Amino acid sequence: MSDSKENLMANAQPVAAAGLLDRRHFLRKSSALAAVGATALGTTAHAATIGDAAPPWMKTPGFGLREYGSPSPFEAEVKRAVLKPYGDMAPGTGVSLTPLQHLNGTLTPNGLHFERSHNGVPEIDPSKHEVVIHGMVRQALKFSIESLLRYPMVSRTCFIECAGNSFFTSNAFAEPMQVPVGHIHGLVSSAEWTGVLLSTLLEDAGVDPAATWLLAEGADAAGMSRSIPLAKAQDDVIVALFQNGERIRPEQGYPVRLVVPGFEGNMNVKWLRRIKVTDQPTHTKDETSKYTELRPDGKADQFTYTMGVKSTITKPATGLSMSGPGLYAVTGLAWSGHGSITRVEVSADGGQSWADAALDETVLSQNLTRFQVPWRWDGSPLVLQSRAHDANGNVQPTRAQWSAGFAAGQLYHNNAIQSWKVNTDGSIANVYA
Amino acid sequence: MSDSKENLMANAQPVAAAGLLDRRHFLRKSSALAAVGATALGTTAHAATIGDAAPPWMKTPGFGLREYGSPSPFEAEVKRAVLKPYGDMAPGTGVSLTPLQHLNGTLTPNGLHFERSHNGVPEIDPSKHEVVIHGMVRQALKFSIESLLRYPMVSRTCFIECAGNSFFTSNAFAEPMQVPVGHIHGLVSSAEWTGVLLSTLLEDAGVDPAATWLLAEGADAAGMSRSIPLAKAQDDVIVALFQNGERIRPEQGYPVRLVVPGFEGNMNVKWLRRIKVTDQPTHTKDETSKYTELRPDGKADQFTYTMGVKSTITKPATGLSMSGPGLYAVTGLAWSGHGSITRVEVSADGGQSWADAALDETVLSQNLTRFQVPWRWDGSPLVLQSRAHDANGNVQPTRAQWSAGFAAGQLYHNNAIQSWKVNTDGSIANVYA
Repeated sequence: MSDSKENLMANAQPVAAAGLLDRRHFLRKSSALAAVGATALGTTAHAATIGDAAPPWMKTPGFGLREYGSPSPFEAEVKRAVLKPYGDMAPGTGVSLTPLQHLNGTLTPNGLHFERSHNGVPEIDPSKHEVVIHGMVRQALKFSIESLLRYPMVSRTCFIECAGNSFFTSNAFAEPMQVPVGHIHGLVSSAEWTGVLLSTLLEDAGVDPAATWLLAEGADAAGMSRSIPLAKAQDDVIVALFQNGERIRPEQGYPVRLVVPGFEGNMNVKWLRRIKVTDQPTHTKDETSKYTELRPDGKADQFTYTMGVKSTITKPATGLSMSGPGLYAVTGLAWSGHGSITRVEVSADGGQSWADAALDETVLSQNLTRFQVPWRWDGSPLVLQSRAHDANGNVQPTRAQWSAGFAAGQLYHNNAIQSWKVNTDGSIANVYA
Repeated sequence: MSDSKENLMANAQPVAAAGLLDRRHFLRKSSALAAVGATALGTTAHAATIGDAAPPWMKTPGFGLREYGSPSPFEAEVKRAVLKPYGDMAPGTGVSLTPLQHLNGTLTPNGLHFERSHNGVPEIDPSKHEVVIHGMVRQALKFSIESLLRYPMVSRTCFIECAGNSFFTSNAFAEPMQVPVGHIHGLVSSAEWTGVLLSTLLEDAGVDPAATWLLAEGADAAGMSRSIPLAKAQDDVIVALFQNGERIRPEQGYPVRLVVPGFEGNMNVKWLRRIKVTDQPTHTKDETSKYTELRPDGKADQFTYTMGVKSTITKPATGLSMSGPGLYAVTGLAWSGHGSITRVEVSADGGQSWADAALDETVLSQNLTRFQVPWRWDGSPLVLQSRAHDANGNVQPTRAQWSAGFAAGQLYHNNAIQSWKVNTDGSIANVYA
């Protein structure tokens, strides 16, 4: 490390215990994390030296142009973790989770967006699929995909999070599961969704002034259906046809799904086939037998829509390991169904002291927000945590605070602070701190 | 169409000739494009009727959960158009183009981001790849991919456009080519790029105050290399490792590329292996034999970096056809290397009268911007055009204006207005209007 870098580091003020540095070092041209593993070549390095070392792939033509691309074979480990509670008896029932430990930025590529299916992914022929709006309307309407594609479209980049995300750290598990961060928190993903505002289609059908709810039903073999308050449907719900620019993927609802920004994933009904306008919730099987929260007094909360303010560090995290003491960028994702993320704090001493993390320059409401903070690890064992705040004044709770609100076995709406234990040997563990 | 819809339409004021309507109809809950093909079911439709019509895919379990997803088989036609000027003699030399006619929103999914390769896509083992910074620096540095991944990252969503985009409407072609819009204008794509600011790495190496340029070289078999002004490199250039959240695709530069926002695509050097800091441009083969613009007087402009303000309608456009007279949303993309798009106008009479289009709610500098305008087509033949404006006051030129600035055969930096002829039979042609 050169003198000037030593000076830079000397000026990098710790802002919390255990090596957390001022986030503003990210905003300077000068890097507080200078040469985190770079090799100094000295002044002898020049073009000729480098030319001598031309790698094999510069000496032979590369592979040909392709009609549809795929990732490098060297990234084959970057895939969704598939969890099938009934195994091969029901290969389409369960989840596949986004591998957060391998990703950066805020978007999720389409091949890695999480999926939750209750009875497999239907292979829908779009020319034979229809969306019907009926019930308390002036005039029931039937839309082909072709007709929906002729409507004006809106685009919205937002997260979708399964209500059951983070169940591996819920109070259904007395001991923390030792699996990669993507297995734990990867039932959240982000995409640019493009489609027709549901309000536009409802207007065309003419909603009865006495209506207050609607039922949305999917065309899968589970007939997945949920009740949605009409006020939300008339606000920002999208009948989405495109995902990150291309038509929606089969497991995300091809050819058409609802996107209900900030609400639990299950309500973003995939393979949408009908909307029934009603004056009460329908109490479908999916909102009575599942997706409710049991309180300590034995009563269950129903219709709990909005996903709470939440964050997790994705690097360092389980599924990765440290490569020795030194400088690191601690990074992760924060999100809230209530609105924009306004602040994320990071602790390296299990929540005793906190440093403010740097956020993305552009923070979108109800979307994933990337945070980062520089950190100098001295090799001691310690516990890393992150804590998110949103524009509505909500603050992410500790696991103990969250857990106290529910009966044992609570799986849904776990937005508790995640703790990662960093061990001296560089290994990382999921802990309840 | 119901009475209330007729009334709505009666209130939709034409704002330019040939059926262009006020863009503000997009912003209302009430749709000016009501029922553009929807079927009215009347008041007899109810849940039982719809249940009777349950489609086959609701009657059997769907397919299983997958580790990495892919598009619906029904979208198999949505692929990049591959153009190989030397055919199978050089299968990795040429371009593949983004199928703009099939996409919506502003992002390009990773599988469909355009590619331009000069001698194929190298299959680089990231554990053996290095990036060297040398030349006029205090200390040359060598970075492994592992060390780059430890740096703090920034994300930037921006377009990359090949300098040769739209060559099928350049003045190298006396007659307009009849190919889909993606074949013509699909050498532009958008992604969220995440990586380390080049300025950070240059700071670590210590740039000589006398330096003014740098050379960036790729590790492909073409040794693609370009000169970049140091001022740009120290501003917003990214050494990118991630594309829409996952590691960069092979054909976009895996494991590491430059992203040079707003500058011609060729300068966004893929498979980056070295940066040499210099006090003059290097005049590489790629910036002398190619990527220069011949003027009418026989002199060539060199180092013309910034991509001009530009737009094209993507629907209706070549590769698609009209399904009869009626209401449509005319939509397309606009972009400028100079900054944000501030205004897009649409004409349905070949540029005689113009209607302002509605833009995305969030417009990012140097990114694709989606525009839309409602349009009632009466079945008459006519010419559709779009014209973009940017925050720097630039206005997209007509093809005649653009062409007059160059010698015949000019292929690069064609940002002229695109004209689509809509014929009475619903077919659409590329025309020079």
